[in-house]
Amino acid sequence: MTRLEQQLQFIREVDQIKNIFRQTYLADGKRKENDAEHSWHIALMAVILQEYVPKANVSKVITMVLIHDLVEIDAGDTYAYDPEGAKTKRAREEACADRIFGMLPQEQGEMLRNLWEEFEEYETADAKYAHLLDNLQPMLLNDATKGVSWKEHGVKKSQIYKRNEHIEETSKDIWECMKKIVKKHVDMGNIEDC
Amino acid sequence: MTRLEQQLQFIREVDQIKNIFRQTYLADGKRKENDAEHSWHIALMAVILQEYVPKANVSKVITMVLIHDLVEIDAGDTYAYDPEGAKTKRAREEACADRIFGMLPQEQGEMLRNLWEEFEEYETADAKYAHLLDNLQPMLLNDATKGVSWKEHGVKKSQIYKRNEHIEETSKDIWECMKKIVKKHVDMGNIEDC
Repeated sequence: MTRLEQQLQFIREVDQIKNIFRQTYLADGKRKENDAEHSWHIALMAVILQEYVPKANVSKVITMVLIHDLVEIDAGDTYAYDPEGAKTKRAREEACADRIFGMLPQEQGEMLRNLWEEFEEYETADAKYAHLLDNLQPMLLNDATKGVSWKEHGVKKSQIYKRNEHIEETSKDIWECMKKIVKKHVDMGNIEDC
Repeated sequence: MTRLEQQLQFIREVDQIKNIFRQTYLADGKRKENDAEHSWHIALMAVILQEYVPKANVSKVITMVLIHDLVEIDAGDTYAYDPEGAKTKRAREEACADRIFGMLPQEQGEMLRNLWEEFEEYETADAKYAHLLDNLQPMLLNDATKGVSWKEHGVKKSQIYKRNEHIEETSKDIWECMKKIVKKHVDMGNIEDC
């Protein structure tokens, strides 16, 4: 197999991410969104919102968010507020990372694997911007759909605050905006006030 | 409305692209893919295949492909081999570009609008790489699904060659690979040999 054929095989394999569905509904509320749609959306958001996170290397962040959910091809989507799923998430995702990134020519696979690890470690400015986008996007969709996904899962305000505890240090403006959305949905009874 | 609120409104509006369906089927053949999924896929391909188009500015190309189909939110998807649709495509898409990019703060909307125009004009190295990706991706999916979309539309080899006439000047390696796929499906009877 040539190098190009190996790359094309990877490109076909990752098509499966279009069938990994999340708990968030599209803005029109008609169906849940999948990982490919979510990843497209936050990659575009990385372009649009870059002025709020001037420390981040946007080009790198975009690649990071384009690949951040590939490990769910085998591991499936683990809902943000699922404590049972969280226990096995890392092991399931690592096994998939080995397989998926291992399909590419070695140095290319390692580059993407390292980007995914950087995202997971949540320490660099780039990883922090990527997580901000990854958390903000479903919040915007939840807001557009009267909090249906929060209601379905009985999500508590404290869980949302815990999940987003590092957003403020990444962008105060965006965190203010997220807090407003949470408050609105607590007032509407869509998020539990505890 | 603050600048951030304006940007978030745009981000919600473009969610609609997840409901614009194309003529291409996913690699598993189970349903057609939508513009968000397609755009995610080619943005990732822009990263993976950059070595074949060293002249292109990958970071710019990724942004270009992330936004290249936003104009279909109002205009709908026009199939690549639909001569009737092609007659009105430009006018429908321009009206949508005015509306969608006009939702953003002015300089940001203009930046994305210009990128879309550059894509449409198909002249720069970046636009050529974006078109290569935009054409290669559905070919890979068609290949994975025994050419179902080509068969449904009675697509001819000459139409595919016409549509891809500039690929060779962008990357000989990738064009060779595309020609092999076309030949295989002509031999299988999935593409008309004329």
